[in-house]
Amino acid sequence: MAKIKLIDYLIKELNNLGIEDIFGLPGDFNFDIVEAIEKNKNVNWIGSTNELNAGYAADGYARIRGYGAMVSTYGVGELSAINAISGAMAENVPVMKIVGVPSTKHIEKKTLLHHNLADVNYRAFEKAYSNVVEATAFLNKENAKHEIDRLINIMIKTKKPVYVAIPMDICSIEVEDNFKKDEIISDKDNLKTVVNLIIKEIEQSSSPVIIADILTRRFNAVKEINDFIKKTNIPSCSFLRGMDIINNDNKNYLGVYVGKLDNKICYEYTGSSDCILALGTVISDLNTMGFDINFNLKDCINIQPFYTEIKGKRFENVLIKDVIEELTKQTNYKSNIELKRTLKYNPSELTEEKTLKCDYIYPRLNEFLKEDDIFITEVGLVPFGAIPMNLPKNISIQNQILWGSIGWATPCTEGCAMADKNRRTILVTGDGAHQLTFQEISTMMRYNIKPIIFVINNSGYTVERILCDDVNYKYNDIACWDYQELPKAFKGNCFTACAKTNKEFDEILKIVEKEQKERMCYIELKTDYLDIPYLSLGIAKYPEKFKNN
Amino acid sequence: MAKIKLIDYLIKELNNLGIEDIFGLPGDFNFDIVEAIEKNKNVNWIGSTNELNAGYAADGYARIRGYGAMVSTYGVGELSAINAISGAMAENVPVMKIVGVPSTKHIEKKTLLHHNLADVNYRAFEKAYSNVVEATAFLNKENAKHEIDRLINIMIKTKKPVYVAIPMDICSIEVEDNFKKDEIISDKDNLKTVVNLIIKEIEQSSSPVIIADILTRRFNAVKEINDFIKKTNIPSCSFLRGMDIINNDNKNYLGVYVGKLDNKICYEYTGSSDCILALGTVISDLNTMGFDINFNLKDCINIQPFYTEIKGKRFENVLIKDVIEELTKQTNYKSNIELKRTLKYNPSELTEEKTLKCDYIYPRLNEFLKEDDIFITEVGLVPFGAIPMNLPKNISIQNQILWGSIGWATPCTEGCAMADKNRRTILVTGDGAHQLTFQEISTMMRYNIKPIIFVINNSGYTVERILCDDVNYKYNDIACWDYQELPKAFKGNCFTACAKTNKEFDEILKIVEKEQKERMCYIELKTDYLDIPYLSLGIAKYPEKFKNN
Repeated sequence: MAKIKLIDYLIKELNNLGIEDIFGLPGDFNFDIVEAIEKNKNVNWIGSTNELNAGYAADGYARIRGYGAMVSTYGVGELSAINAISGAMAENVPVMKIVGVPSTKHIEKKTLLHHNLADVNYRAFEKAYSNVVEATAFLNKENAKHEIDRLINIMIKTKKPVYVAIPMDICSIEVEDNFKKDEIISDKDNLKTVVNLIIKEIEQSSSPVIIADILTRRFNAVKEINDFIKKTNIPSCSFLRGMDIINNDNKNYLGVYVGKLDNKICYEYTGSSDCILALGTVISDLNTMGFDINFNLKDCINIQPFYTEIKGKRFENVLIKDVIEELTKQTNYKSNIELKRTLKYNPSELTEEKTLKCDYIYPRLNEFLKEDDIFITEVGLVPFGAIPMNLPKNISIQNQILWGSIGWATPCTEGCAMADKNRRTILVTGDGAHQLTFQEISTMMRYNIKPIIFVINNSGYTVERILCDDVNYKYNDIACWDYQELPKAFKGNCFTACAKTNKEFDEILKIVEKEQKERMCYIELKTDYLDIPYLSLGIAKYPEKFKNN
Repeated sequence: MAKIKLIDYLIKELNNLGIEDIFGLPGDFNFDIVEAIEKNKNVNWIGSTNELNAGYAADGYARIRGYGAMVSTYGVGELSAINAISGAMAENVPVMKIVGVPSTKHIEKKTLLHHNLADVNYRAFEKAYSNVVEATAFLNKENAKHEIDRLINIMIKTKKPVYVAIPMDICSIEVEDNFKKDEIISDKDNLKTVVNLIIKEIEQSSSPVIIADILTRRFNAVKEINDFIKKTNIPSCSFLRGMDIINNDNKNYLGVYVGKLDNKICYEYTGSSDCILALGTVISDLNTMGFDINFNLKDCINIQPFYTEIKGKRFENVLIKDVIEELTKQTNYKSNIELKRTLKYNPSELTEEKTLKCDYIYPRLNEFLKEDDIFITEVGLVPFGAIPMNLPKNISIQNQILWGSIGWATPCTEGCAMADKNRRTILVTGDGAHQLTFQEISTMMRYNIKPIIFVINNSGYTVERILCDDVNYKYNDIACWDYQELPKAFKGNCFTACAKTNKEFDEILKIVEKEQKERMCYIELKTDYLDIPYLSLGIAKYPEKFKNN
């Protein structure tokens, strides 16, 4: 059996998952890891500006590539990244968190090296991580190969992050070069039963409807769900996290479910349906507009990644992809219904030059989007602006509706753009969120990736102004920066501009169409501090304070 | 008994500890906390650019004021700050980490609100924190008052960080307004025994010597140790973390202990001493130049915050401050020895204009320092540059020798400067570390504090270049920014300049002397990527690669 150094084995197996770029920061306890990456021909080292940013970038990379990885040093570095990795956990994004730790001899002797708490416990930070990832491993000479294999298999199966701590001396041990991927297949009998039962339910139904959500994407059943819809013409909608799953030109596509807030046809059709197929759904507050759902998941056909529940009865070991694929093969159902979504932007109209507002920005951005684009919507108000968009084919929309960590989107954009350099990557962020992590645009320019970044400068945390008691509380103010000057101070190659009116915005978009081929574009959009996407009025504590703005 | 709202009680008691500024970011689960701070007349809300920065700022504040506090939201916010709070733990800095979490009803029902992992566990993040702080509490109606009191007392006693999670609805419950501070006093009998034994040891000794370290400062025995040295003339030195404890003009002060690296008199005198008084010492790698100590702590008189060990025999419940105070009162010992430190910068000499180098920067900075200054030395090479300095009276030097988290120093500077606006606060950082957290300079300008910041721009992580196999590994490169432009892009009031030669540096320092009274000063010092403080040659893997630079 061929032997290979453990660290080279790990990098090779990550590369076999499609990873060609690993994010992180060097530190004296991870030199052997980072050096091995620097010397590897198939994988690039991407040095981020800090570990939180590296974690978010790895998350973005995994969202597009399927898997991501980041490296940090022991203690200080790994803890700085824990929010990003927790976000990957919440959002089902498979990222491997790799930590370089001091050598085994120091661990055994409990030597008080730097990056330790005074009361030395070399497992303390792994223990902290064990609360927020699917699995952790702390390598030693005996377990190293087995643990690496175990973690990779868990990551493949669960699509969730894993954590590995590698003592310096373990990097160079020789291991057998024989990764064995666990088999992940549906139970044949259960699959057959499930598919037959669902077909029967659909055939007996007068108004079947499909709700698609994020786990359909994470478990690679997007093509399957669209094939199924095309064959059956069953009306479909999506939750917010899954808004990019269903081709918008599919027949009877009803748009994004937003409860009573808007999109009446979607709300009413799902509410009155006698057969809801819920595909990979996650029932959380923001994903359902505050649990504003007019059906009970227990009454639905609830198809989850590894099980299906049909009106309360649960069938284990059936994969979502297999269930939908088999449904499409075996069903002959075809709906004759004709429905149209009601929630959709009208074409933007530029009749006269006006102060720039969300009501212009988002419809205009909708027209700017193209087939295959990657579109990142920062936590806060941006997803509300995206909901009514009519999406071009094969667009990938990224949001963080469950974890909701402001600042995530900027480094996530780096990861997405790095993961597929042939697609346009477009970010819309708010100034408040952007300030947390914005230095990662320096890394983007350094590695010559060319996203298009729109920073909505509304002088603070406007999403919080709409949720709190007083829109003028000072704690929602932030420092007002000259955003256009930032990329210049980073000395990168970048097109920058600022739009204060609808006309300026239009003109800048035209320039961006050309510039984005050559370099990063970084555009400030100046709006009033109380200007918000109209859908977000629905979650405002005092909507009247915003309506006239 | 007077009643008070729980959140107002907490803020009041923090204020009673000397806290007048609380750092953090708002979020929809901490509105009640942040609003209470905004409305409180005695405490200011300081909105940081991100949670890690807020945590570091609270750490800096506590280093000067005695105590600090920061507020974040649940999940996302608290996890982003965990590295900063862990740093406070490692470095014995009492900071209260306050987290706003969803209301009790959601916790009880396990509602899947945002900022949760998909598998809801409202205690998961507290559990993560429990690995890195002295104590945690998750409040409910019954335990709230008791837990707040417990945490504050722990913080006072241990000088370590504590963590409190406050469900939104708990903020407004009414509690009794009667904080009772735990008594922390020495055991009288043990104190008497210890002091008598130590005096006997000193009197029998031919060469007693004092080593002072960080815990002497954290447990407020700095005045006591200096009084003791003045009365006895016993030769003294300090470890790196405690380099600002002993007045440099005390007789027989031998400077900072750096093992065999340099400062020969210090190394030899401690090595040959028959009576070492180790005061508040922490034996960690960097604090002792790689455990390069020529004595055994077990043979010393080891005076720790709560116990004293005399040649292996341990006496509990004696406070370091009491021990030293009593020693000074009761001893009649007076040494006649006359020793002088050997490790000390010569006056900087500007004979001809030359490229700026560390060998000029640090001696010149030494001359720039004044009585009462606060001087923050970023993790990496800066502490090596500070070691040979002759320190003015009552200077406070901040470093993070144990935790060693690059990026800490910039926000720490904000906290220090905020904590005492009457002292000059001076930061020296490296470009690599600065990039992690530099946006906090925006917060400093926003709140009109005026530190003097020197950024040594040496094109990367030079501290890692000296530790790794190849000084030219690309992973130690970073993006090269135009540092002077950054404060301008933040639109703050700031004096900026860049020095590339010794002469320019001198001229800029003259201007800074005036400018710093009116506004922040932010100075880039451009040096070669292999230019290092000479003392750090001692830890270089291949010193010959640096010697000629």
